[in-house]
Amino acid sequence: MNQLDELYSKLLVKTGAKMALIVLDGLGDIATRTPDHPQHELTPLEAATTPNLDWLVAQGCAQGRMTPVAPGITPGSGPGHLALFGYDPLEYQVGRGVIEALGLGVELKAGDVAARANFCTLNAKGIVTDRRAGRIPTEKCEELCALLKKKIKKIGDTEVIIQAGKEHRFVVIFCGKGLEGPLTDTDPNREGLPIATAKPTSAKSAKQKKTAKLIAAFYKAALPVLKGQKVANGFLMRGVAHQPAIPTFENRYGMRAACLAVYPMYKGLAQLVGMKKIEGPQTIAEQLERYVKEFDNYEFFFIHYKYTDKAGEDGNFAAKVKAIEDFDAALPILLNKRPDVLAITGDHSTPCAMKGHSWHPQPVLLHSACSGSDKLQRFTETGANQGGLGHFEAKYLLRLMQANAKMFDKFGA
Amino acid sequence: MNQLDELYSKLLVKTGAKMALIVLDGLGDIATRTPDHPQHELTPLEAATTPNLDWLVAQGCAQGRMTPVAPGITPGSGPGHLALFGYDPLEYQVGRGVIEALGLGVELKAGDVAARANFCTLNAKGIVTDRRAGRIPTEKCEELCALLKKKIKKIGDTEVIIQAGKEHRFVVIFCGKGLEGPLTDTDPNREGLPIATAKPTSAKSAKQKKTAKLIAAFYKAALPVLKGQKVANGFLMRGVAHQPAIPTFENRYGMRAACLAVYPMYKGLAQLVGMKKIEGPQTIAEQLERYVKEFDNYEFFFIHYKYTDKAGEDGNFAAKVKAIEDFDAALPILLNKRPDVLAITGDHSTPCAMKGHSWHPQPVLLHSACSGSDKLQRFTETGANQGGLGHFEAKYLLRLMQANAKMFDKFGA
Repeated sequence: MNQLDELYSKLLVKTGAKMALIVLDGLGDIATRTPDHPQHELTPLEAATTPNLDWLVAQGCAQGRMTPVAPGITPGSGPGHLALFGYDPLEYQVGRGVIEALGLGVELKAGDVAARANFCTLNAKGIVTDRRAGRIPTEKCEELCALLKKKIKKIGDTEVIIQAGKEHRFVVIFCGKGLEGPLTDTDPNREGLPIATAKPTSAKSAKQKKTAKLIAAFYKAALPVLKGQKVANGFLMRGVAHQPAIPTFENRYGMRAACLAVYPMYKGLAQLVGMKKIEGPQTIAEQLERYVKEFDNYEFFFIHYKYTDKAGEDGNFAAKVKAIEDFDAALPILLNKRPDVLAITGDHSTPCAMKGHSWHPQPVLLHSACSGSDKLQRFTETGANQGGLGHFEAKYLLRLMQANAKMFDKFGA
Repeated sequence: MNQLDELYSKLLVKTGAKMALIVLDGLGDIATRTPDHPQHELTPLEAATTPNLDWLVAQGCAQGRMTPVAPGITPGSGPGHLALFGYDPLEYQVGRGVIEALGLGVELKAGDVAARANFCTLNAKGIVTDRRAGRIPTEKCEELCALLKKKIKKIGDTEVIIQAGKEHRFVVIFCGKGLEGPLTDTDPNREGLPIATAKPTSAKSAKQKKTAKLIAAFYKAALPVLKGQKVANGFLMRGVAHQPAIPTFENRYGMRAACLAVYPMYKGLAQLVGMKKIEGPQTIAEQLERYVKEFDNYEFFFIHYKYTDKAGEDGNFAAKVKAIEDFDAALPILLNKRPDVLAITGDHSTPCAMKGHSWHPQPVLLHSACSGSDKLQRFTETGANQGGLGHFEAKYLLRLMQANAKMFDKFGA
């Protein structure tokens, strides 16, 4: 633990205060004036009609902008959310294999090694002729994964879990002792080459060496199972990584935390830090209703809303505005049972003009009895630029929420 | 020394420029709209009539907000001031015993160990029956301290200093070689238990072990002295800590520094870093007059004003407004002999609505020939949110003041 985290731990007081962190995925956006993009003088958040957010702002809120990881760094969902959960995304790096497994709803333990895998086509000489096996349909992928699962349950003392994804994609998880990533990919990254060997990235790591042997053994067991297949007679592995040991949310912050997310990836990320997944709700209204129902059972609620990001990725300005307005329409369900501390933000920006995640600081809104008021009219990127929270690293949001819940003693006399 | 401090040192140029740091204690505040608090759409600084600050702003100032220690951390006066003096408050931690001793005007040297102490009541079996000895009057405390002082001047080669405080409180200082804190408290923290033993917090520290033995010996010598007392026949010690070795202000910044404070605590904190205490002035007008008189004798003046914090702690909005206005009325004394660099800020926020210190960033005003102007009308929290200094850690203010005094060479070519 670093010195500052130690200090936070030392000053921690459990107050039983309730808090909610609402993540409007990819919320942040940019106004565009250049001719390169459709011109939008307002961001989607500025263009949206948000009577309920406006009402909340009028109750007294502090706004600011958060750098998701570091200046100029565009985060994936993993680092974006880890930061929001108060974990330094540079200190706690979660490999792609693990993220992919979480996205498919596989539950991992610290030390488990996961890899993304693709079915591929091999010729008679073992040369990769199609890295995606002609994008076989998902049903075929499921069938082949079931076949592999049936034949390969263990390698030595290591349990093997295989989980089908969409089209040619699946994940492989190795649950055993003494394993560690990252390893190099077996994907040669272009056709015309044989399957590569997964190699340790650190020559000193005996655990990586063991994991490399395990993957070689897995290939030895799995390729014969696929032998009869015409298209998907091989597979490539990427992002071989282990789940790092992450201090649990409850230990770190002294709060029981619940995750109200619809998509498996976000449930998985919440579970990484030990939050309790609450299953069932499929819409933001249902998520907020469930928050009200579970209010007494947890101190912290992570509520994830995907559609702002989806619209941003599609470059669909109108859809992003609509997603924000849909969220706003549901918000009163929570406002009628307001937590002591409420934060509304994104895990990063997904500007419509860029059709993808970006590094732009996401706006954040913080409301509590002692958040103070910036005297702003609305929650927007431009307003947040002038907010009392200033620009800060996303990993500190949770600490600010704790401070607003009076969860820290004074430091020094 | 860390890399950045090393760089500052390397680039340092003594220019003989004059600077003043005016600390309006607990200046920062919040606007409150929620029904939980009395509603104040303006902060005290915004509500106050401050013609002289307004005049200063019109001359060209840069404003900003400062995080006193780290996001969400509420500092006591010690860390708050160390940061303003340019010392990282996480790197230079000063224990409670030391702060208490400073507050009672005791002069400490690096390595001296200080502890807060309370008189308490013990029954015949040595069990604590009242941890505060019925809050004996201050006169009684002084009498008992005088008694202890007379009987215990030294333990082995270690000098013992005893200084009475208010009611049942006093401090004990051990001046000797090879001592170190922190030790655990002898206060059992509740009645019905015997006095605890002060133990080292690090098993490896021979100095802590020696200090623990010293405290045991002090008890052995002191308890018999109190034996005849009915109420205050024992005492409990807390916050046993040593004064850390802190590089002096003059060595670090190349400026002779003077402290113009009224309250002992702030004089003590200034003395910790080797500032010269100037005794005498009792009001802010007298402090500023003295600044004018001493202008030629120092390069740096730390001027401390307590009443903003006091009003905040009392939750007295009107009194905080008045304290700011009283300061503003005295300000022309200094403005008539303006230093080259002037900073006006707080050591932290003390929002009236919270009746105590808080983590909210304090506003800061910086004026020099090259501070630039934010084109703001007044010095306020809301204005400071938009200021050219942005949000930054308080420990950098002194470096900014030095830069404004042209005390740094260019870094690199």
